[in-house]
Amino acid sequence: MKIMNYEERKTYIAEAAKRMNKRVYQEDVRSKNVAPRTNGLTNSHKVVTLEEAIRRSGLQNGMTISFHHHFRAGDKVVNMVVDKLAEMGFKDLHLAASSLIDVHEPLIEHIRNGVITRISTSGLRGKLAQEISHGLMEEPVVFRSHGSRGSAIASGELKIDVAFLGASSSDPMGNACGYSRSPNAKSICGSIGYALPDAEYADKVVILTDDLVPYPNRPSGISELDVDYVVVVDSVGDSSKISSGAIRDTKNPRDILLAQQAARVIIGSGYFKNGFSIQTGSGGASLAAVKYIRQSMIDQGIKASFALGGITAHMVKMHEEGLIERLMDVQSFDKVAAESLRDDRMHKEISSIEYASADEPGSATHFLDIVILSALEVDVNFNVNVLVGSDGIIRGAIGGHPDTAADSSLSIIVCPLLRGRIPCVVDEVTTLITPGSSVDVVVTEYGIAVNPRRPEIRERLEHAGLPVVDIHWLKERAEGIIGKAAPLPFGDKVVGVVLNRDGSVQDVIRNIKD
Amino acid sequence: MKIMNYEERKTYIAEAAKRMNKRVYQEDVRSKNVAPRTNGLTNSHKVVTLEEAIRRSGLQNGMTISFHHHFRAGDKVVNMVVDKLAEMGFKDLHLAASSLIDVHEPLIEHIRNGVITRISTSGLRGKLAQEISHGLMEEPVVFRSHGSRGSAIASGELKIDVAFLGASSSDPMGNACGYSRSPNAKSICGSIGYALPDAEYADKVVILTDDLVPYPNRPSGISELDVDYVVVVDSVGDSSKISSGAIRDTKNPRDILLAQQAARVIIGSGYFKNGFSIQTGSGGASLAAVKYIRQSMIDQGIKASFALGGITAHMVKMHEEGLIERLMDVQSFDKVAAESLRDDRMHKEISSIEYASADEPGSATHFLDIVILSALEVDVNFNVNVLVGSDGIIRGAIGGHPDTAADSSLSIIVCPLLRGRIPCVVDEVTTLITPGSSVDVVVTEYGIAVNPRRPEIRERLEHAGLPVVDIHWLKERAEGIIGKAAPLPFGDKVVGVVLNRDGSVQDVIRNIKD
Repeated sequence: MKIMNYEERKTYIAEAAKRMNKRVYQEDVRSKNVAPRTNGLTNSHKVVTLEEAIRRSGLQNGMTISFHHHFRAGDKVVNMVVDKLAEMGFKDLHLAASSLIDVHEPLIEHIRNGVITRISTSGLRGKLAQEISHGLMEEPVVFRSHGSRGSAIASGELKIDVAFLGASSSDPMGNACGYSRSPNAKSICGSIGYALPDAEYADKVVILTDDLVPYPNRPSGISELDVDYVVVVDSVGDSSKISSGAIRDTKNPRDILLAQQAARVIIGSGYFKNGFSIQTGSGGASLAAVKYIRQSMIDQGIKASFALGGITAHMVKMHEEGLIERLMDVQSFDKVAAESLRDDRMHKEISSIEYASADEPGSATHFLDIVILSALEVDVNFNVNVLVGSDGIIRGAIGGHPDTAADSSLSIIVCPLLRGRIPCVVDEVTTLITPGSSVDVVVTEYGIAVNPRRPEIRERLEHAGLPVVDIHWLKERAEGIIGKAAPLPFGDKVVGVVLNRDGSVQDVIRNIKD
Repeated sequence: MKIMNYEERKTYIAEAAKRMNKRVYQEDVRSKNVAPRTNGLTNSHKVVTLEEAIRRSGLQNGMTISFHHHFRAGDKVVNMVVDKLAEMGFKDLHLAASSLIDVHEPLIEHIRNGVITRISTSGLRGKLAQEISHGLMEEPVVFRSHGSRGSAIASGELKIDVAFLGASSSDPMGNACGYSRSPNAKSICGSIGYALPDAEYADKVVILTDDLVPYPNRPSGISELDVDYVVVVDSVGDSSKISSGAIRDTKNPRDILLAQQAARVIIGSGYFKNGFSIQTGSGGASLAAVKYIRQSMIDQGIKASFALGGITAHMVKMHEEGLIERLMDVQSFDKVAAESLRDDRMHKEISSIEYASADEPGSATHFLDIVILSALEVDVNFNVNVLVGSDGIIRGAIGGHPDTAADSSLSIIVCPLLRGRIPCVVDEVTTLITPGSSVDVVVTEYGIAVNPRRPEIRERLEHAGLPVVDIHWLKERAEGIIGKAAPLPFGDKVVGVVLNRDGSVQDVIRNIKD
């Protein structure tokens, strides 16, 4: 019997280590790390230049790079990074963006020069979309919905080698988000939900930020655990443009009329009950619809459990009034929403997987009662096209359209009968994006059509005194005003492939001739 | 030139599908899912009984199950699950808990019956610890720090087959956390940071909850993406006991004296500057120290950037006063902290990996300026023991002790010179938990010892008029009062193995004879 000391225990330690197949501890002779720290800003080997980040990432020709589009028309990251990749001599890259917009026109040159040879995206707009519609690329662009992109990344079907993710703040370790709490904040985009699958699943993750803040930049959507490099740049995006394009607050009288009519549909649908949930897609009329159910919610003592998807200032206001319990934000549609995400505990950033993955039974769309969506075209079978114009040119984005339409209890499409000389209710959509089996109600300024699969909805809306009409009548009405649409001069080259939520090929887009 | 319709596009679609090795989309003939939902509570196949969850998880004899200890002495999950596993006939299981406490005494029977044959944990207390110290198990218990457990789970060294994680609320999809916002809340433990690596890396994750709430239970630490089954039980834990044992708010006059002295050390250390960060470990004196720096922070206009680790009501108060910018919470030490985590946007739940992983340069401990820790024993080489009593019996937990001591700029141990007849400053610690190279200052009621590796600290404390003494003098003082400790009757059986942060075997614990 004796005092055991460490020397005497060493035999036992060695034996235990051998048995466990581990090393024996050797006293660490390093001093403690007591180098002075400048307010959390030092001690990171992750902070490098863009060129170093690319080099160290191991990116090779033929690999897949990814981007998010939360700055929408204000995005500066895609062009900046692809310019640098071109300068460094990369070729044959696959660009997998959550969406591409007008501002990405410079990609045309990079496609011509062979830097980018494949694109996966939810949408395409502007000159880039026009060129691609005319046959710019050899490989067709692969279009997926937001939920499908999340699923494909999670399943490995869409494998990302290097993700380049813009953030409005990051600390030197990569805790990063779409807002900044520092006095030096240069930008804000709010939720970066479409970037979260990239952060989680990409082999290498590069954060680009215009506000390097002291550790710890928490709470933040992206954890440093997922980040390899942090690159400080002048600007990741122009925040004034996050509400641009399809998500401007509408002042258009017809949009307001459509929004009010959609609100009446919601209220009369049978789904307007305490605890209901709602999403409004992009497009002036759909975004505005929520404004017009507010008073009825107050009058009838109805509160929503959550608003989902693109979150707007209207929703934030109603949340702060207590009319909407939670905001589930995969994309902030304006600055008010982005700031609310930064500050409000019950305004939750969610990834596109948590938002709308078809593979994930718990994704939020599965719990969605009502969604209001827009359309470029609806056809007599209730199929919807939100991607390709009636001129055959790509000019939109799939977004969460098919995800929310399929999973919600009630999907409402708001759509004018005509846009100028273009009919929006047609015989057959130019491109099939959301199958008619998912679409319940179509609201136009000439009447409301209900999918025959939902007779109970039709009955309720008629009961509520709403002008329910047959969808064929709407189509004939449109044709009556402007005649049959002229045939489109499609060629034989497939320039785009639209994937269904189940991963199958749902439609193709062919090149358009001048 | 003709209108392309879907029928005509089918050849192109088939070709594209073939080229991409995908199926062609077939119109989904299912109706939309319009079954009425009861406020987000239906539509989940994840909600099952405990027995079903175990059965479906694929658990086999010999596999590893895991648990968290955020309810501390109030935990009901470990006993409930292991009872059920025993009843179902499982044998030879490896129980990997973040810690085990007095309340887990029933495990003794399950060990005797061969249900549990291996244990990995951060700590052991009570009758279970006594029995294990006397040689109950054939396999030695593997002890890891909280940071090391996180690293080991992330690296696959500690592979968890099925995690059983208690949650104070969960929705049917498994969005779960350590608090509830519903009127039916039965329990609260706050952060479940030690369970987050299990949720992320375990093959199967079972949430046990005593409050099934409607979807979406967000924000929440655990996302449904990581959850396989949700089991509703009467109670996951007694929240009144989360502040039990080592984390009670002290009223002991000696602890208060030690806390005040530790506060003086902090203030005089050179690290008490605007933007500093701080953690207080469990133990009355260390927890209380933060109270006694508050007035100096106000007087000197100093604000902390973050408080880390076990978060207490004191810290919440100082955060709400604006004295601490952020709370980084891996474990809520009391109910006030747990409620603040639920409600406060700047009170952030972090995983044990984000907290203290040695493998992760961005883990919070790497940015920690000051940590105040307790000890069962300190020796003349500044080595610390927090696991095994001076009687050779296991009665503590490693916790984040070695993680925070190693990574912080200033580690302060508060420790009485004597506990009753037991000396706390000794020649050599009974078990080596935190190597002396990581320990900077030892505060006792008889004087303050500074590690000779930190002469600049010694100088500053002397300059501040603090009673700096040699650690050998403290040891002799203790021996002078109660004499040399009696030798301990250790046997030859290794009952515990202590792993270092680097994964090596640092020490062993041998069985103690009566």
